[in-house]
Amino acid sequence: MNLVILLEGDAAGGGCYRLTDYRAEHIRTILRAREGDRVEVGLLNGSLGTAQISSLSDDEVELTCEVLHSPQGLPTTDLVCALPRPQTLKKVLITCGMMGIRHLYLIRANRVEKSYYQSPLTQPENQLPFLIEGLSQGKLTRLPQVTVHDRFKVFFEDTFPRVESTESGTGCKLLASIDALQNMSDLFDASIDRVTIAIGPEGGWVPFEIDLMTQAGFQPFVLGRWVLRVETAIVSALGQLDLLRMSS
Amino acid sequence: MNLVILLEGDAAGGGCYRLTDYRAEHIRTILRAREGDRVEVGLLNGSLGTAQISSLSDDEVELTCEVLHSPQGLPTTDLVCALPRPQTLKKVLITCGMMGIRHLYLIRANRVEKSYYQSPLTQPENQLPFLIEGLSQGKLTRLPQVTVHDRFKVFFEDTFPRVESTESGTGCKLLASIDALQNMSDLFDASIDRVTIAIGPEGGWVPFEIDLMTQAGFQPFVLGRWVLRVETAIVSALGQLDLLRMSS
Repeated sequence: MNLVILLEGDAAGGGCYRLTDYRAEHIRTILRAREGDRVEVGLLNGSLGTAQISSLSDDEVELTCEVLHSPQGLPTTDLVCALPRPQTLKKVLITCGMMGIRHLYLIRANRVEKSYYQSPLTQPENQLPFLIEGLSQGKLTRLPQVTVHDRFKVFFEDTFPRVESTESGTGCKLLASIDALQNMSDLFDASIDRVTIAIGPEGGWVPFEIDLMTQAGFQPFVLGRWVLRVETAIVSALGQLDLLRMSS
Repeated sequence: MNLVILLEGDAAGGGCYRLTDYRAEHIRTILRAREGDRVEVGLLNGSLGTAQISSLSDDEVELTCEVLHSPQGLPTTDLVCALPRPQTLKKVLITCGMMGIRHLYLIRANRVEKSYYQSPLTQPENQLPFLIEGLSQGKLTRLPQVTVHDRFKVFFEDTFPRVESTESGTGCKLLASIDALQNMSDLFDASIDRVTIAIGPEGGWVPFEIDLMTQAGFQPFVLGRWVLRVETAIVSALGQLDLLRMSS
């Protein structure tokens, strides 16, 4: 936990925040902090800053915010991901928090098992702890938006274009595909801020899906020489995007 | 399991291999294969190819190798990693198998807890299942070499230079550091095949360590804008390296 994320419900007035859950435990036992010590904090969807530990007991840690910087800007990377198995989804949610995803679209695909849609993890309240774990690690405060979509064709022909039409200008849309001829640096355009990356299910997209996504403006790119797991492919793709953005 | 890795001990003569462990279980229950079906196989440190299932029972799967291609070349990426906690090390070992690492050096650093050296995972026989899991996922057959080193200074001043002196030419040595001014594309040299990437412990390297590694020829690079976990930093760095190699 590089950053203690503070929620509205923790606020006790006057810049004070009371923590009684795993965050209090972490501050006591992992950080081994004492009264008067300072920790880095972030207000969910708000500012980063520091807080002083004003009191600390076995049940509760009280923090008083001292310095708060201006809120972080909204991230500009969206992720479209074939709904993975629940264990993988946990890792994907943490990564989205940690690596600055704005919107995670979890979609249906041919090789997505229907049972995954029954997972409690498709519910926002169950996603929140993993997203916050990622924010704490990556030192970010902007909570990624997560939506679940159960019709592939409707998503690409209707839902996603509708979201796009509300944005200023067209973003860059990329689709990881093992058979692609180009890589991300061939397709990256530094003049376009907003990037959406689509990552397929274990076993990959089927040809019909790649055709339909290509028609929807997604450009196939090859991620690398190896066959990666979903959660690994996402990290690798976001790492590559970050390199291209830093280099431009 | 995208590839069934076959070991010497599985060989039953005449191109036949008998499996009785989790691989047999995987072929039966996940791949739902039957007699006569074909699976992709890889001989550990050898060829990739296909095998036909010659018999299949609850206890045993027998495979007969049909086509074997020439062995894969030796990978050219080495990884120096501050010895992580055992749960993280498992993920690092899988990644090394999956993303084509030649040699993983697990080293001591100031922020490495001494207790990590007592973990059974520092022993080769306990690393093997995770490395093979990675190879199976990445469709690779070359087993990464893993060595454990308990003295930081000795490693960079003696051990690593001695290994380097046996190589043809100097490789490119990179050191992930949050304070670095350059990124991997500033430092990457497409004319140099061999690349070593060093990834620090949770909490990062201490200044003394960065100084000593810099003197040993490691060039600091910034991985991205976020604070990543060790296992995530490794995937992100290997993804970036793969992009630069594909683009050159």
